[in-house]
Amino acid sequence: MAPQSKLDQVISLAKRRGFVFQAGEIYGGSRSAWDYGPLGTELKENIKREWWQNFVRGREDMVGLDSSIILPKAVWEASGHVATFTDPLVECIQCHKRHRQDHLIEAFEAKKGRAPKDGMSEIACPDCGTKGQFTEPQMFSGLMKTFLGPVDSESGMAFMRPETAQGIFVNFANVLTASRKKPPFGIGQVGKAFRNEITPGNFIFRTREFEQMEIEYFTAPEDAPKYFDQWVKDCWAWFLDLGIKEENLRQFDVPEDDRAHYSAGTIDFEYRFGFAGSEWGELMGVANRTDYDLSSHAKASGAELTYFNQATGERYTPYVIEPSFGLTRSMMAFLVDAYTEDEAPNTKGGVDKRTVLKLDPRLAPVKAAVLPLSRNENLSPKAKELANELRKRWNIDFDDAGAIGRRYRRQDEIGTPFCITVDFDTLDDQAVTIRERDTMAQERVSLDQVTAYLSERLNGA
Amino acid sequence: MAPQSKLDQVISLAKRRGFVFQAGEIYGGSRSAWDYGPLGTELKENIKREWWQNFVRGREDMVGLDSSIILPKAVWEASGHVATFTDPLVECIQCHKRHRQDHLIEAFEAKKGRAPKDGMSEIACPDCGTKGQFTEPQMFSGLMKTFLGPVDSESGMAFMRPETAQGIFVNFANVLTASRKKPPFGIGQVGKAFRNEITPGNFIFRTREFEQMEIEYFTAPEDAPKYFDQWVKDCWAWFLDLGIKEENLRQFDVPEDDRAHYSAGTIDFEYRFGFAGSEWGELMGVANRTDYDLSSHAKASGAELTYFNQATGERYTPYVIEPSFGLTRSMMAFLVDAYTEDEAPNTKGGVDKRTVLKLDPRLAPVKAAVLPLSRNENLSPKAKELANELRKRWNIDFDDAGAIGRRYRRQDEIGTPFCITVDFDTLDDQAVTIRERDTMAQERVSLDQVTAYLSERLNGA
Repeated sequence: MAPQSKLDQVISLAKRRGFVFQAGEIYGGSRSAWDYGPLGTELKENIKREWWQNFVRGREDMVGLDSSIILPKAVWEASGHVATFTDPLVECIQCHKRHRQDHLIEAFEAKKGRAPKDGMSEIACPDCGTKGQFTEPQMFSGLMKTFLGPVDSESGMAFMRPETAQGIFVNFANVLTASRKKPPFGIGQVGKAFRNEITPGNFIFRTREFEQMEIEYFTAPEDAPKYFDQWVKDCWAWFLDLGIKEENLRQFDVPEDDRAHYSAGTIDFEYRFGFAGSEWGELMGVANRTDYDLSSHAKASGAELTYFNQATGERYTPYVIEPSFGLTRSMMAFLVDAYTEDEAPNTKGGVDKRTVLKLDPRLAPVKAAVLPLSRNENLSPKAKELANELRKRWNIDFDDAGAIGRRYRRQDEIGTPFCITVDFDTLDDQAVTIRERDTMAQERVSLDQVTAYLSERLNGA
Repeated sequence: MAPQSKLDQVISLAKRRGFVFQAGEIYGGSRSAWDYGPLGTELKENIKREWWQNFVRGREDMVGLDSSIILPKAVWEASGHVATFTDPLVECIQCHKRHRQDHLIEAFEAKKGRAPKDGMSEIACPDCGTKGQFTEPQMFSGLMKTFLGPVDSESGMAFMRPETAQGIFVNFANVLTASRKKPPFGIGQVGKAFRNEITPGNFIFRTREFEQMEIEYFTAPEDAPKYFDQWVKDCWAWFLDLGIKEENLRQFDVPEDDRAHYSAGTIDFEYRFGFAGSEWGELMGVANRTDYDLSSHAKASGAELTYFNQATGERYTPYVIEPSFGLTRSMMAFLVDAYTEDEAPNTKGGVDKRTVLKLDPRLAPVKAAVLPLSRNENLSPKAKELANELRKRWNIDFDDAGAIGRRYRRQDEIGTPFCITVDFDTLDDQAVTIRERDTMAQERVSLDQVTAYLSERLNGA
């Protein structure tokens, strides 16, 4: 058997330790969506909180929004999604399975190193192997529909948002009035989005249900290029500040032909996920959406989606710079980047292999583990008392099962920055031993100083 | 015109100040869903965070989960939702509008003080007024469906969850293994749910898209009654601790005939929202779901959803106590409860009416507002500097537009606990005046003490 890739190891760890479970697993599972277990929920929440603090709450030029997932069809007609959010599908005439034509061609090119001749005639169906027997491509919508109200009919049809962005555009005038902001200012939002991907895959990278963190930043048209550059810099800095290694991140200036219909310029951030085939995958993008969205919605709805600059007496439709982050993709990147194997001393004087998630303490799902040296009627209550005290502020583990070395490994593997051991000396000196995850250095800390000790080192978490 | 009810005033404030906007408003709006503006997003987030800290992160017997919205049909068949999550609909033969039969009968009873005779013959269609001309009732599913994959067919049909609970049950075994918990323990989850309500209404009270905060607490069967009582107490205490007045909250022991199909006992918490007609509305419920869900899923999926107690050598299917909170309903209750009108001194030596949201500081969307006494080249930069410093920790407003009294009113109206005024003395004494929202008492605080001053009084927020 081939050795597991690092990505495979991360996926296996994520499932085993309860970061991510397959949705509906007991019913055979689905690749459409994933469920986030106790650790994944905390990690995802921490990423969200850092993002919100850094890009929304912490900035005077930003406000937040939380708009609905289901929006009337009219919104998606005006945004261009009904007309253009489509992919070309072909059906195999033999087995009737459907595939994305562009994906079949890309796979052929990757394998053969050249474009296929004569259309699809050289391409085999990935399901049944029949060569060149496909229907003409038909455009298939990536929008997921549902029906509202007492009848399943066209009139009650609505779409689940494929991006959170449109909820921001249709609320532009409301937010402008209620929050008394003026350009340049932005609206940030975190939430679920849904796309009917034909071939979901690569773990939580491509799913039908996923989470985004999006900003729409409204500027005077002439300032758009300046803010575009600034947002690219700010987003880049955010990932690095939270520990992503620079060699695993790169920018891709998307050529005009490959950009979304609304974009006058897009820079994608790609992360080195380590997929089989192409290592890199899209993590986020910054796009200059121009005045496309506000103008389209103004035209379709009749609403006034402009800004009147009292200083200059000018009225204009703001341009929009959109930094759009995949939250679930960011979580996957943080996990892959943090995954490390090194060595730790064992009790026999040698070393053992150790797996450690070197997550930034702000992101770590468990901030500290309290470990009584052994299961003992004096140590356990003391340790529980400390754990309960720390739990008022942080997510804390308590573990008294097995050898201490093994318990350290369990915490290293999930990225817990600090292990706090309550031992027999604790009963006398009212102090505990705190071990730091990456250096494995240990320090004796007085019980009444533990909160302060952690506060200082958890970087504001 | 009749004077506005308190509820109407709260709704009007919520829209005007950017707590809640109508979804898709520029396209005529929808009653299916609402969008949360800058203040509503922060308030909702604060409720969520308090709930998570109190019931999940802060407790040693709880872990979190974040499962997907879309789940395969098999899950909803096993849970009983496909068969029983339905309402009786009748259609008016004249105008072809559909109505819930039980709602028509309830409305008749409320108006006439007696049950209708001869079935529907006395009841008029609310749309066209025709009396007694309805089809036989048909059962209509409250589940919202969508289609996954490249074909809109039965095989790709999936449902959007009508409750977050089932995502917890289907992950029971995964969580048990990964988090090494044993009963009694619980799994908490916050997230969106979708129900195809026939008549959404009452602002954010009944919508097709809404948010829940749910706990499934797994116990040995014989312990279920004890934990049921404990959870009722804990939930009651949570609302009171966050400021809900006890006279506006009541419990309702749901009679057997009115309970959901899975419940062996339900206590609903009702809040005095002040609706026209019945003042009270359901806020949350605590139910004893017995082993109904785990047994049903075990049977349908073949998975082993039991717990083996090593101490006694017994294997059992845990009973489940479910405290299920409406997040959006909780937000509405906190808004209604906090809405107050009192009097504040004006500059003419008299008093003016003042509207103040007396939200607990932990819930207040803006924690403090920094107000330069006037727009001035020395005061404004000083005030901005302070605002930016405080923004590292809290959501902070900066407002330099209009008279100071008017700016106080704006902050009172959105529940900001503290207003910090930077005046000309500040330039000399390096101190500011901090005004408390409810008492309107003012205190001079040194600039370098402002963070500590707020920390102490924001109750951990």
